Amino acid sequence: MKALVLEKQNELTLRDIDLPSKLGPNDVRVAIHTVGICGSDVHYYTHGRIGDYVVREPMVLGHEASGVICEIGSSVTGLAVGDRVCMEPGVPDLASRASKLGIYNVDPEVTFWATPPVHGVLRPEVVHPAAFTYKLPENVSFAEGAMVEPFAIGMQAAARARISPGDTAAVIGCGPIGIMIALAALAGGCSKVFIADLSVPKLAIAARYPGIVPVCIPEQSLAEEVFAHTNQWGADIVFEASGNAKAFDDLFKPARPGGTVVLVGLPVDPVRFDVAAAISKELRIETVFRYANVFERALDLIASGKVDLKPLITATFDFSASVEAFERAAMGLPSDVKLQIRLDQQGG
Amino acid sequence: MKALVLEKQNELTLRDIDLPSKLGPNDVRVAIHTVGICGSDVHYYTHGRIGDYVVREPMVLGHEASGVICEIGSSVTGLAVGDRVCMEPGVPDLASRASKLGIYNVDPEVTFWATPPVHGVLRPEVVHPAAFTYKLPENVSFAEGAMVEPFAIGMQAAARARISPGDTAAVIGCGPIGIMIALAALAGGCSKVFIADLSVPKLAIAARYPGIVPVCIPEQSLAEEVFAHTNQWGADIVFEASGNAKAFDDLFKPARPGGTVVLVGLPVDPVRFDVAAAISKELRIETVFRYANVFERALDLIASGKVDLKPLITATFDFSASVEAFERAAMGLPSDVKLQIRLDQQGG
Amino acid sequence: MKALVLEKQNELTLRDIDLPSKLGPNDVRVAIHTVGICGSDVHYYTHGRIGDYVVREPMVLGHEASGVICEIGSSVTGLAVGDRVCMEPGVPDLASRASKLGIYNVDPEVTFWATPPVHGVLRPEVVHPAAFTYKLPENVSFAEGAMVEPFAIGMQAAARARISPGDTAAVIGCGPIGIMIALAALAGGCSKVFIADLSVPKLAIAARYPGIVPVCIPEQSLAEEVFAHTNQWGADIVFEASGNAKAFDDLFKPARPGGTVVLVGLPVDPVRFDVAAAISKELRIETVFRYANVFERALDLIASGKVDLKPLITATFDFSASVEAFERAAMGLPSDVKLQIRLDQQGG
Amino acid sequence: MKALVLEKQNELTLRDIDLPSKLGPNDVRVAIHTVGICGSDVHYYTHGRIGDYVVREPMVLGHEASGVICEIGSSVTGLAVGDRVCMEPGVPDLASRASKLGIYNVDPEVTFWATPPVHGVLRPEVVHPAAFTYKLPENVSFAEGAMVEPFAIGMQAAARARISPGDTAAVIGCGPIGIMIALAALAGGCSKVFIADLSVPKLAIAARYPGIVPVCIPEQSLAEEVFAHTNQWGADIVFEASGNAKAFDDLFKPARPGGTVVLVGLPVDPVRFDVAAAISKELRIETVFRYANVFERALDLIASGKVDLKPLITATFDFSASVEAFERAAMGLPSDVKLQIRLDQQGG
Repeated sequence: MKALVLEKQNELTLRDIDLPSKLGPNDVRVAIHTVGICGSDVHYYTHGRIGDYVVREPMVLGHEASGVICEIGSSVTGLAVGDRVCMEPGVPDLASRASKLGIYNVDPEVTFWATPPVHGVLRPEVVHPAAFTYKLPENVSFAEGAMVEPFAIGMQAAARARISPGDTAAVIGCGPIGIMIALAALAGGCSKVFIADLSVPKLAIAARYPGIVPVCIPEQSLAEEVFAHTNQWGADIVFEASGNAKAFDDLFKPARPGGTVVLVGLPVDPVRFDVAAAISKELRIETVFRYANVFERALDLIASGKVDLKPLITATFDFSASVEAFERAAMGLPSDVKLQIRLDQQGG
Repeated sequence: MKALVLEKQNELTLRDIDLPSKLGPNDVRVAIHTVGICGSDVHYYTHGRIGDYVVREPMVLGHEASGVICEIGSSVTGLAVGDRVCMEPGVPDLASRASKLGIYNVDPEVTFWATPPVHGVLRPEVVHPAAFTYKLPENVSFAEGAMVEPFAIGMQAAARARISPGDTAAVIGCGPIGIMIALAALAGGCSKVFIADLSVPKLAIAARYPGIVPVCIPEQSLAEEVFAHTNQWGADIVFEASGNAKAFDDLFKPARPGGTVVLVGLPVDPVRFDVAAAISKELRIETVFRYANVFERALDLIASGKVDLKPLITATFDFSASVEAFERAAMGLPSDVKLQIRLDQQGG
Repeated sequence: MKALVLEKQNELTLRDIDLPSKLGPNDVRVAIHTVGICGSDVHYYTHGRIGDYVVREPMVLGHEASGVICEIGSSVTGLAVGDRVCMEPGVPDLASRASKLGIYNVDPEVTFWATPPVHGVLRPEVVHPAAFTYKLPENVSFAEGAMVEPFAIGMQAAARARISPGDTAAVIGCGPIGIMIALAALAGGCSKVFIADLSVPKLAIAARYPGIVPVCIPEQSLAEEVFAHTNQWGADIVFEASGNAKAFDDLFKPARPGGTVVLVGLPVDPVRFDVAAAISKELRIETVFRYANVFERALDLIASGKVDLKPLITATFDFSASVEAFERAAMGLPSDVKLQIRLDQQGG
Repeated sequence: MKALVLEKQNELTLRDIDLPSKLGPNDVRVAIHTVGICGSDVHYYTHGRIGDYVVREPMVLGHEASGVICEIGSSVTGLAVGDRVCMEPGVPDLASRASKLGIYNVDPEVTFWATPPVHGVLRPEVVHPAAFTYKLPENVSFAEGAMVEPFAIGMQAAARARISPGDTAAVIGCGPIGIMIALAALAGGCSKVFIADLSVPKLAIAARYPGIVPVCIPEQSLAEEVFAHTNQWGADIVFEASGNAKAFDDLFKPARPGGTVVLVGLPVDPVRFDVAAAISKELRIETVFRYANVFERALDLIASGKVDLKPLITATFDFSASVEAFERAAMGLPSDVKLQIRLDQQGG
């Protein structure tokens, strides 16, 4: 079948490729409708690797996907042909110790779309376990369905933060993930979310949402803004979503005594970490690795109208223009939040 | 000073009464502006007692209050004369074991306004510890400030539920507290809240809020509605806010496996409780006694616009019409959510 | 193969029976060594049912088992022929929503040994998923291995209690499960555990363990003993392990403000439950349904010497004397804690 | 009164000094019996400062103390003259926002004995709030009572770790705090605790306790030892108690997927912190600042016999030999765990 193949660093081709397509009894076959482009897809394209994950063989890109079920395995219940769905791209060994504990995202055996050597889903169809395939509510479009995966990271961050109703949060980094976290934190109980970045256009997009307060560094100080708003108490939760080593210099400053810091962004190298500063406030520091058990909740929040991801879809490309879409993504325009590729021609 | 005094069961007088008014170094003096009428105030009026708390001496009623600071103690910081405030009516011994643990609401030594023999605040002014006096944000009115106390119960229920972002909740009982819980649960992270009651007018008021789904029993079954919406999984959280013994017959039915039940309503007598039903889903059952550490969060949510309590204020009476206000409250009209009494004549 | 078959209520036979024995790729085949007799086994024997679970066809009894792996499926890793093991008797659908959350014990699809219509393991061998088969540490005997299942209930109770180091606990009911809970609570961080029962011989067995304080009701009051020991503060945790409706009359009395009650015992009918008493201390009430993710931890505690279950094995019967063993168990002698049946003849 | 005064860096005098001694209504006056020497006392002696805390005026040292109540304030209940007690050296503002939340240890207004400019307790008597004074159980000696403060740090670490019964833990650093953490972790529910250090004599002391496994680095690898013991799964909890920047290089290696790391040791400077390594296992990182609400629990564990601190008291000096005691402490002998000074001459 025709797929968007990363042949090697910097070389993308839309071409035929042989892909496994055997349907097991607990699997469904999904006709892909829409796929979002993630920063990691772009990074594989431009660098040929992410850390220890190296693209050694041609690999299909894409892991943020929605589509329609076109075939179901013999043991599948709860899903049917014709169902509009989105899919969780990581598939663990459900019998592993981590999976039994409910933290299947950290199962060492997990496979994940578009992470070498596993193929992604920029292709007409894919076979996927029914257990990681989720029906879209009627009022959730395919485009929104393909946003569930990146939003799931925000949901995981919000879940691990253990928000108390009314908490004040601060997010460092206003890229797509930073915005997703801010939206999940607001929907998840925060009264207000400060979001800090150097980029004015990025902040402008986030600031359109009620409850999000942009902080343009270095003109403004995130800690000062937070303290002014909280009667000098500090933020209940600080989310690090920039992956920038510099962010760690002042990471604990906006936090209140006994507050929480959630690490989502992935710095390339070890960072300078002020243990004494964290200890003096007895902070709790959570880390986020992808997500587990949040797709249903994400869909519920989108369907309810509490979270509106549509304004974050900056542009949509035809499948035939996939390479162009990646070239645009690789430019990293500050006004681009999410670019999507539509494979289906019949609406959505 | 002139106060609304419950002389004994069924006898209310607006009259002069001598009340302690010594200002300690950590106290503030507050000129009362608005006081809401709570079901417990009405119950003392109509029954002369609540359980073991018996009105043996004339007692001033009222514990849902906002006002303006008119004097501060010598050690007070963070508050100033002229500050618009609301007050937490329970005052614990801060040095008790419970208070040191942060659960000052269950300190056996707590005193609480308008709970015999402690006087309430339907009077021109009160002396109160600064630690339990909270500044109103600029965009929060006195009327809303006097709603913080009942809303705090909803906040406590939502906090103890430990909502995960996107949870589905069900609330049993659509009185003022049931609605407060529903609003706190939505603001606190739930995607949808079902609320069940026998009274159509009460449900109609709740249903005006987006995200709240009314369930009119016995025509509809709460469990069935919840299951239909959640793909037969059940509600993550069930709040019992009716205090009706009958509600316990089916209390665990709407809950999902591993879900949570939060008990807020106070049945007069012990209820029939199906231990096996709770165990078979391994439910967690939380109970709520007033609140602790939620006033700031409640105010943040109100100020942010995530929670709008104004539609719940059905009518406002002058202080001079206090007795009339209580007579109206005692009628228990289903369309009355909250009645308030305004003591200040100068706006708000 | 020869098995102990419950033909119907009150009729047990040791006889040949055809049982499925197909080994799947993720299964192991285990030669059974030792099986403990559980109260539920006895109840099926004497009553033919437990609640809605009715013995309609002949059913093999037994679910507390240890043995030796004699064959492994093609995909099994981490286990080998010859491994000494114990087994978790409940097998969920690992792809279910509950299992993905880590609470596979409440998966509605779970099957459980010796729960109609599923056969138990009083038979020479069984095929079981590797994921629910656990290696015995070298210093843990087969007899102890067969104690892991009942101890796992104590472990689940201790885990759900969320013990803080040094907590004081009270256990109501000094049967096998009550003792298991007391031992798990002590090993799990409690400084002292009070255990209450009417039976002096049962209490005498528990009292042999350091840290367990017997309370003989009704001569002694559990609440009074706890209060005297805790400076009138109360127990951090109260475990209900009697399943006796009467225990609920005073269930909340021994608990401290903000404490926890854990319900393990299964009363036949709904009980009288004093909501107001629970609310006035803002108690958290947890329930326990079997267990999940505790077998490894249980084995670690036994192997470490922190938990010694050997004194609880009152008598051991040969497989050929199985019916006699059940007759003894059905007598319910207060000095009998656990009776075991040994199938293997070669030591252990 | 005569006290051990740190005049300035490197200059200790046992001399008369004027100290405030006014007894407030909620205070007790305690005749000091025994005081342990803490690493921080020694550090002030040898360096004249710890971070931003600089000794600018002569300051009495000592904060690990037990004694006898010799006078009580007019409002004190629950304590009496003659009571044997130990004291929590940090005194917060009980009306602060942090204290109301139960995390009074991070109240910015807390004052702490022997932390400039607050005097310590190497002196015959001290006035202290009753709320932070704890009765010693009958079977707990004064010497043990003076061990409660350092053990409380271990208790706080164990509490924040949220141990599940049977957890495996690893402690990095076998100084007094490392050992305290190991003991608290074992008493608090761990089945086994690995403890790593470079010093053989220190490890030998820890290894005397059942359940503690010494790991002598660099000959042995902590991660390898842990993995070998846990079937390649890893430690549920890793405690960092060395404060050594190097320990952070491999800090996350011994942890299991989804495990917990608890930071107790205070590195002088920011450390290199491998965010990606923490994230890939989705670790939770807790920090520990002193302690809150653990003194009663610590005493319960000591009184129960589950924790025996007596072997950790290496030597006891007379008050008159205080300077000599500090000189010995400043030598930092690896075989010295805790040195104590006894002020009372009458036994205990």
